[in-house]
Amino acid sequence: MPKISHKGQQMPESPIRKLVPFAEAATRKGRKIYQLNIGQPDIKTPEVALDAVRNHDIEVLSYSHSAGFESYREKLAGYYQRSNLPVEKDDIIITTGGSEALLFAMGSITDPGDEVIIPEPFYANYNGFATASGVTIKPIQASIENNFALPPIAEFEKLITDKTKAILLCNPGNPTGYLYTKEEVKQLADLALKHDLFVLSDEVYREFAYDGAQHHSIMSLPELANNAIMVDSVSKRYSMCGARVGCLVSKNKEVIATAMKFAQARLSPPTFAQIASEAALDTPQSYFDDVIEQYTFRRNLLVEGLEKIEGVKVAKPKGAFYCIAELPVENADDFAKWLLESFEDGNETIMVAPAAGFYSTPNTGLNQVRIAYVLKKEDLERSIEILEKALKQYKQEN
Amino acid sequence: MPKISHKGQQMPESPIRKLVPFAEAATRKGRKIYQLNIGQPDIKTPEVALDAVRNHDIEVLSYSHSAGFESYREKLAGYYQRSNLPVEKDDIIITTGGSEALLFAMGSITDPGDEVIIPEPFYANYNGFATASGVTIKPIQASIENNFALPPIAEFEKLITDKTKAILLCNPGNPTGYLYTKEEVKQLADLALKHDLFVLSDEVYREFAYDGAQHHSIMSLPELANNAIMVDSVSKRYSMCGARVGCLVSKNKEVIATAMKFAQARLSPPTFAQIASEAALDTPQSYFDDVIEQYTFRRNLLVEGLEKIEGVKVAKPKGAFYCIAELPVENADDFAKWLLESFEDGNETIMVAPAAGFYSTPNTGLNQVRIAYVLKKEDLERSIEILEKALKQYKQEN
Ligand SMILES: Cc1ncc(COP(=O)(O)O)c(C=O)c1O
Ligand SMILES: Cc1ncc(COP(=O)(O)O)c(C=O)c1O
Repeated sequence: MPKISHKGQQMPESPIRKLVPFAEAATRKGRKIYQLNIGQPDIKTPEVALDAVRNHDIEVLSYSHSAGFESYREKLAGYYQRSNLPVEKDDIIITTGGSEALLFAMGSITDPGDEVIIPEPFYANYNGFATASGVTIKPIQASIENNFALPPIAEFEKLITDKTKAILLCNPGNPTGYLYTKEEVKQLADLALKHDLFVLSDEVYREFAYDGAQHHSIMSLPELANNAIMVDSVSKRYSMCGARVGCLVSKNKEVIATAMKFAQARLSPPTFAQIASEAALDTPQSYFDDVIEQYTFRRNLLVEGLEKIEGVKVAKPKGAFYCIAELPVENADDFAKWLLESFEDGNETIMVAPAAGFYSTPNTGLNQVRIAYVLKKEDLERSIEILEKALKQYKQEN
Repeated sequence: MPKISHKGQQMPESPIRKLVPFAEAATRKGRKIYQLNIGQPDIKTPEVALDAVRNHDIEVLSYSHSAGFESYREKLAGYYQRSNLPVEKDDIIITTGGSEALLFAMGSITDPGDEVIIPEPFYANYNGFATASGVTIKPIQASIENNFALPPIAEFEKLITDKTKAILLCNPGNPTGYLYTKEEVKQLADLALKHDLFVLSDEVYREFAYDGAQHHSIMSLPELANNAIMVDSVSKRYSMCGARVGCLVSKNKEVIATAMKFAQARLSPPTFAQIASEAALDTPQSYFDDVIEQYTFRRNLLVEGLEKIEGVKVAKPKGAFYCIAELPVENADDFAKWLLESFEDGNETIMVAPAAGFYSTPNTGLNQVRIAYVLKKEDLERSIEILEKALKQYKQEN
């Protein structure tokens, strides 16, 4: 039997999926599970996007331009311009999800063996894209004590070698919910300019900023034009995760030209999904206002609920729809499994994502979990109640 | 300005796209261009697939399973079983086009520096996927003299080193139109077993076999179960190139488990496209009968037309919808550009794909072009007429 490659063996398993067999077993036992573990919003997709697909008049479903519909790129540039970002149609490549944009970006700016610095905890699939590209991730630890703010620039500087090609930032952050300040973004930009690095900014949650806070895009700094690469996606913004449409944005012509070669090799992004995404740009502002209100409400409910539980410490999120909580347990991995395997309250339990999978440094964040507040009020309230009871029982049993 | 990586620089430009600026300039001059250069069929997509998308009742467009809808995989397994291929639902990962399946397969079985042997000429984007994966392609030349049949096994054996991980076969072939015989597939299988190699078989044109010839899938050989990986796609079968749905199929559990890690990192294949693809499996046989009849007719028209032109030699295709023709010119690249820049007949011209881009060996196939017979009768007839006139004029001018 021929052998699977070393790289294949090294590809990380998604930390969220590891619990799936336990959840399936619990479901088979008839248990109801509140899923706090994944970033799949329950928010309805805008009708305007769903209708556009319903009303398609396609006869031959042909390849689109490898960079995506021109009409969509044009309109999307307008969307960024309304946020005062100087993005033109030709600065955009439409991708199959933000995921593909991350892969194209890494592929374009790194060679196997190169390094990318990322504040941790970070979106776990960065590990997969890095492994696929042969890139080494150099993590810098952010701390729950200050809500996972940007680590001191001196810490970044210590990690820079001649193999360092980029700093990857997730803003607002998954799993932290941290929204970087203007100051922090500027500091990073200065560092990147000083060392000639790319800043790869994953802004797929850019619309999700709470308490009136402003999102500061990497594209807002003119001096960084040649160093900045933005990744975006319709997945969360319009609750259109299944569409698989995202984009890579850069004013650096060489980056775009190189990423285009990756885009051409895979021919084109999905057509129906582009139709939906282009139409989604007409989503009325009231939709976002409602969504932001909804998430703000849920976040407050969750954070306040968690803070009331003895021994729980929460990082207060300012954006996205996740928060990291430190639990009074030694190993959140074991606890998360136990919740599915051995616990129930009225035949119900919860599923959370152990945070260790979001850290690149081994044995870090062991007592932390990520909770996504993508459930409605009653479910979220019930989930908090279950967590509180579960922690009590777990303490007694252990 | 930060530097683009070596790999990024090495990513090949699609040989078909190189001519696009010249075509655009010609179009601006008001010239009509018959596009024989791309594999975009003009065939209508089955109504049953288009309707399924029209009638969707999605409210929240959520991520699907990373391996694709279970219902789709189940039904797709049934489709293969009807061709007597022992494929089960769990042997299938639904991908974003056959393109992604090729990328996942290469990523799963190779490390940077590994080698894959491919008979040339081959589908040019294999170069892109290989570069993205850090893999070196070792070409074996097939010859127009025998319609690009499988080169002697001894030639393959000469290229095998301890870095060789797989042999990649395209069956039926793009750009050759060659349909491998049962004997040839068996020979390759024996070789793979002897040297413990994977056989990666790109069968996206599997339904396009003419003159009653049978397609012999790599999945039909039980002894090769652990070595065989099939790549398939809905793009050509249902004229659904824009859907972006394909699949990776293998009985080797380790291959599937490894490819699944790549699949999970990018979350899921596109949902609307999966709806269309699942429905497309209900396409009546009469649709395929008509399509095969249509392509057979076009192939005959094209091949007979080309053979009548002085100095043109054609490889007679038995499958897919391409053929390679040798032209009485020194450099088909120059000729193809000239067709767009300097030639017109009644303000019309043709666009062909220079075949050199399908060869990995430098300076090979320089006088060959690939012609796709994806146009309707009148357009194909007119294209042949234009080619004949153009060749005459080109000879006079050069
Ligand atoms: C931070 C972050 N980036 C990128 C993605 C990729 O999303 P998609 O490929 O659906 O756009 C996700 C999805 O959860 C995410 O959380
Ligand atoms: C031989 C071959 N393989 C794979 C593909 C990829 O097609 P898709 O990604 O649309 O499935 C093509 C497209 O032309 C092809 O010709």
